[in-house]
Formats: sequence, C-alpha cells, structure tokens
Amino acid sequence: MTTAPGRSVSANGRSYRWMSRPLVVVCVDGCEADYINQAIQAGAAPYLEKMCAKGASLLGECVVPSFTNPNNISIVTGVPPAVHGICGNYFYDREADEEVMMNDAKYLRADTLLAGFSNAGAKVVVITAKDKLRTLLGKGMKAVCFSAEKADQLTTENNGIAGVLGLVGKPLPKVYSAGLSEFVFAAGVKIMARDRPDVMYLSTTDYVQHKHAPGTPAANDFYRMMSGYLEQLDAMDVTIALTADHGMNAKTDAAGAPQIIFLQDWFDARIGAKKARVILPVTDPYVAHHGSLGSFATAYLPAGADLAGLSAKLRKLRGVELVLSRAEAAAQFELPPDRIGDVVVVSERLYVIGTSPSRHDLSGLDAPLRSHGGVSEQLVPLLFNRPLVDVDPERRLRNFDIFDLALNHTA
Amino acid sequence: MTTAPGRSVSANGRSYRWMSRPLVVVCVDGCEADYINQAIQAGAAPYLEKMCAKGASLLGECVVPSFTNPNNISIVTGVPPAVHGICGNYFYDREADEEVMMNDAKYLRADTLLAGFSNAGAKVVVITAKDKLRTLLGKGMKAVCFSAEKADQLTTENNGIAGVLGLVGKPLPKVYSAGLSEFVFAAGVKIMARDRPDVMYLSTTDYVQHKHAPGTPAANDFYRMMSGYLEQLDAMDVTIALTADHGMNAKTDAAGAPQIIFLQDWFDARIGAKKARVILPVTDPYVAHHGSLGSFATAYLPAGADLAGLSAKLRKLRGVELVLSRAEAAAQFELPPDRIGDVVVVSERLYVIGTSPSRHDLSGLDAPLRSHGGVSEQLVPLLFNRPLVDVDPERRLRNFDIFDLALNHTA
Repeated sequence: MTTAPGRSVSANGRSYRWMSRPLVVVCVDGCEADYINQAIQAGAAPYLEKMCAKGASLLGECVVPSFTNPNNISIVTGVPPAVHGICGNYFYDREADEEVMMNDAKYLRADTLLAGFSNAGAKVVVITAKDKLRTLLGKGMKAVCFSAEKADQLTTENNGIAGVLGLVGKPLPKVYSAGLSEFVFAAGVKIMARDRPDVMYLSTTDYVQHKHAPGTPAANDFYRMMSGYLEQLDAMDVTIALTADHGMNAKTDAAGAPQIIFLQDWFDARIGAKKARVILPVTDPYVAHHGSLGSFATAYLPAGADLAGLSAKLRKLRGVELVLSRAEAAAQFELPPDRIGDVVVVSERLYVIGTSPSRHDLSGLDAPLRSHGGVSEQLVPLLFNRPLVDVDPERRLRNFDIFDLALNHTA
Repeated sequence: MTTAPGRSVSANGRSYRWMSRPLVVVCVDGCEADYINQAIQAGAAPYLEKMCAKGASLLGECVVPSFTNPNNISIVTGVPPAVHGICGNYFYDREADEEVMMNDAKYLRADTLLAGFSNAGAKVVVITAKDKLRTLLGKGMKAVCFSAEKADQLTTENNGIAGVLGLVGKPLPKVYSAGLSEFVFAAGVKIMARDRPDVMYLSTTDYVQHKHAPGTPAANDFYRMMSGYLEQLDAMDVTIALTADHGMNAKTDAAGAPQIIFLQDWFDARIGAKKARVILPVTDPYVAHHGSLGSFATAYLPAGADLAGLSAKLRKLRGVELVLSRAEAAAQFELPPDRIGDVVVVSERLYVIGTSPSRHDLSGLDAPLRSHGGVSEQLVPLLFNRPLVDVDPERRLRNFDIFDLALNHTA
C-alpha cells in the first residue's frame, strides 16, 4: 500500500483516486432503502430528496451474513470477508477453541483504505456510534478515531482527538438511543467545519431501525435528523456517499410474535445434546434490541455427522431459506472457510435463527422483533450527492464499492 | 364432490368438516403480515390484536406467482395452480394463440369448495372488491356472489341478491379507493346479520397496500376500518379465518425510483426483436396502482433458442433472483406446465419485471411503486379468532390451507 498525495491510493488490489474535495462516507446501520424513501414521502427528509435528485441513487448488495462488523470492514477495505477475514460479529476460533467477539484487530487480514489514505498523508476521521467497531476500523491508522459511546473518554494519544463533548455541545448519549447516532453526525459536522479532513467515515447504530418500520414516526424522525446534518455537511462543499451495512426486515408474524428457528435444539434432538456447536454471528454485547436473533447461523458438526442428510432435513424446516456446506457458503458469500462451520443456514425474510429458547433474553425487546443477517437484507442504498459517471450498467454493485464509486466515478 | 349436510364436503381430494357456526374467510389482498403488526402497535386495530391473542396467528406460504387470481382460486379450491389451472391474472393461450385475461371460468380446471358446500346445501356468500374475480369464484355455485365494484348492477338471477347498496347504506365505491374494500366488509356484516349464511368469502383489493407501507397513516386507517368490521362479525358468533393472496414489498431504491428489469428488451437485444414473447401474469385491466409491474414473468422462446445459455446470462442480471425452465418452475411452484412459458424469471425483493419502457404507463403511480409476484411476497398471515388444534408443527402451511385449518383444526 503506497501512494503519493495528489495521485491515488491502492488497497487490497483496488485503486482509489485522491479526493478533490473532502469525502464523507456514511454507513447507516440497518438502512433498508425504504426508510429513506418513506421519510422523503412524508416530507421528513428534504435534503435526502435533494441529494437523490442532484446526485445518484442506486441499490447495491451487502455482504452476507448481513451483519454490522463484516460489512463495515468490507466497506473500509473494499473487499469481501474472504479477503479481510471478518465474517461476523462473533465466531468460533477453532485454533483457540473458544467462541469470541470478532472485534479485535488481530482478526483483520487486510489493510483498510482508511489506513492507506492516512499513511499517504490524508487527514482521516472515523466516528462510530458503538465502541465495538472502533478498534477494527482504526487498525494501522494514525488518525482521528473514536466512538460516540466513549466520547467522554477520548485522548489525543488514543483517539487523535479530545474534548469532543465540548466541541459538539451535547452530553454523552446513551448506548441504546437514537441520540448515539445523532452524536456521530453532530460530531462529524463540527469536525468537518473546524478541521476539514480529507476523508471522514461515519458509522451509526441501528437502534432505531430494529424497533421502527420505514415510514413510522420514530423512523421518520431519525431520517429527518440525518437529513439535517447531511445538509450541513453538503454546504461545506464535500462529497457525500451513503450506504448501509445491511437492510432490515420484520421478523414476526401478523401478531408481532418473533418467528424463530431454534437450531441448537434441532441438532440436539437429532444427533445428541451439544454435539453440534451452533454459532450465531449476530451475537454482540449489545443484545437488547435483537436478542441475538438474526437470519444467519453456522454450525460445527461432530466428526462422522451426516452432513448431507442433516442438510436435506434442514432445507424442509419451516422458515429455512438456504442450507450450504462450508465450501458452498464460502464460495457463494465470499467468506473465509476457516472461520465458518460445517454448515451455514440462512432463514427466510420473516424468520430468525436462535440456539435454544433459554439462551435468548427477549425481555429487552419492547417492540416486535426486526432484524437482519440473511439474503433478504442484502440490498442496500448507494447514495451520492454528485452524479456518477462511467459505471458499467451490468456491474454487480456492492456496498463495499462505495469508496470506489465516490472517488473514481463522481463527476 | 358429494356430501350430506351435517357431515363433511370433499373437494379436490381434501375433506372439510361441516361448519358448527358460520365461517367467514377473509382474503386481504396484499396483506403483508407487518401491516397488521404495525396497525396493532399503533393502537389502530384493537380487534385484530384481540383476535391474535384469543385465537391463533401463523405464517403460511402463498402460491408463486404471488398474484391475486392464482391465490384466490387456490384458497377456494384448496389446491395449487397445477391442479386448478389459474396461474396468473393474464396468460398466453397457446391453443388460441392469443394473450388473454385469466378471468373466464373456462380456464378453471377444478371445482371450488365453495361450490361443494353450496351444492351440499350450505348457504354461501361470496363478496369481492373488483368484479374480475367474481366469475372465477362463482363457478358452479348457486349462491350469493357479487363484487363491490358492480354493487349497483346486482340481480337476484345473476348474483343471488339485489338491493345491496340500500342494505349497506353506502354509495357505490370508486374502483380505485380504500372504500372498495370497505364496502366488501360493510356488506359482509349486513348480510351476516340479516341472512346468517354458513360460509362467507370476502376478498378485498390491494389499492391501499400498493400505495402505503405498513405502519404509515393510510395503512393504519385501512386496518382500523377492517378491525372494526371484523369485530362486528365476531360478535355474531362466527369463526373468522383471515389470510392474504400475497404479501407486498417496496420495489424501489432509496429515492423511490422503481427498479425494473425490462425483459422483452433484454431478449430482443440478444435473439432479435419480438422473437421472445414475454408474459407478465400481473397484467390486469386495473393497472393504475402497479403499472403491470410485478416480480414474476414468463417467456416463450422461438424454436432453437439457447435456453440454457440465455438462462445463465439472465441469472447474472441485476435484480434477478431465480431463472427456471418450464419443468423446474412447474415442479417448484406447482404450476400447470401448459400455461407457462419456456422460462420463468423471478426478481429480487426490491425489483420488478417489465417488458419495454414504452409498454408500461407509470403515470398513474402517485406513490413510489410497491408490488408483488415473487418469492419475496410468499409469506402471508394465517389468523383465526379461535385456537387451532392438532396442527402438525412440521407441516408446510399454505394460504390455501385456510379452509382446512378453519374447519378441521379449530377448537
């Protein structure tokens, strides 16, 4: 990864033109395209409407499993998990024989283009909502990098910035709140105005999207807020490129009851208790809004298990959309085979996958379950405040093409 | 199809117990499960909430193509299109060499269980929103059968009832209105109160669902209306069973622009103009709310066309979810092979399939496109105002199991 300022930066086999004006890439967590469409329809997001009209709007595919960590890392590396290694929020480390969060930078197998620009002399700012992403995103980078969640604990040494609460003029937001994401935007605006960095990466949390459907009042309020901050950024002559880590769907029946496939119980009943190890890569320390229930699971099976027979039975299970072997899943979803189980199960749009009822605390759910993780949440927005040029209409667009599109294909 | 009153009725190889109280089956057109969930959350549908709580709520799969005619006919016959023959709203009649609406009863290859009950002595009432379904639903039946659309033209000879406008006390509703569906419920309540039929089948129109997302004000208003009428029916000691012909999804990007695969143009560019005949089974005379754009298409190819090669290319096309040969589609979706083309194309959740831009009039769309037709709209609600008993948890539930569940599995 080498470059000279004013030319281009290469990262993971892709080349990015140096920005002619500051570039702000926004990853809106759980931003199903219809959130923006409905907010525009309701008159709640006038800047987003203007942005689509004067710039460009496309749909792209995110990484499956459609979870936060794999997608944020794909966006900042420009490559799928097969290359960068982060294929979930949580995984089974076979070498260490333990189940761990995938938040440590040691799991990251690729350099980020943020680090590439930073090392080439660009001024880079990364702001996340939750702290869990900060370490991964900040790998190898001398730049401003902090989370709204820990905005009261910043030091110049650790974060490249301090005094952000004072700069923003807001109190530390609660971790479960729309305010956590608002703080990201508010800080972005203040820092852009004061420091005018070359690259800014803003990544929000899907607290609102897990609770509220597109077009409902609280969802429209969130996008009204976002529209206002992006308008302020736009006024500072920056390129804005917006995408999402994943979409979001209801995971309930008409009564609002979650539709859950308990996969550990299913295996236990067929091959014996605890013989299979079911991993839910949605798992993270912040479970209150989804109860660790997503639409993607992987399972490690004991030696000698009848993979083909079990897979055939699983395919007939109510709510199951796809059952793939490790090799098939690695090929289809571009995942690192050494970090997924013997079988991958993806559930249908309105279903999620759990382990056993006792292992999911749904008491924190104060609204009917909405979640993600599957193929049904793969399409996400790609929005730009400038027109795009020379994009091959046959090209398969991904959310992790956002830097390429913003730097190499804006007018 | 023979039976004695008081026992059971058989139709198309399935047996239905005689009702112990009047049975009202409601097919809510385009009723994505989240419409009901969101209306309940907003406090707009108190009876629907009570109905779920005291009765039963499940999800079932509708027929693909997830359009109105195939699904209404499956519901009233209890079997898939492979048996009853209605596989679209519109099809290419190869024998007659013409493209025609599939509204004529001559295309129906099975008897309905409505006719079965009627012929066995049950008093049957069928009320549809649009007139297009009335002929098919009323086949072989001496019963009350009319549409809200033509409620001013009813005669006892043709419809088994007259004077419905006076009975309901409402003017004739407009065909493009929420009022068309409201009239169906209002008439159902008045007729149940006056005549207490044994079986009532109410089928609405998805005018509201094509325009308004779950949880938005106009959608909640629709379900508030429906909740009120169903509460009135419930108070008359009837069994209520509710399902949908299909779900409904946004078919746009974040800017609200429809995502359309123009399939006729695609074939024309590859094998010559008009060599392929692309059929959109969504087509019906009422196009204003969807512009004949749905997520399912079938194409007839000229002799010697490279089906495998074209299919492989189609699978890579942006927005394409499935490409199946006639035999594969007939097997997977239980369709009549003689009424579908050489290839079946299903688009992804946010995409629809059209022919050529000039053949789709989108001027009637006054809201961003929402539509259906694909696998992404296959899951629909199954709601009952009484608990269900003895339903095998492994059973694949279909919307066309609704009469079986309501008659054979309610307590």
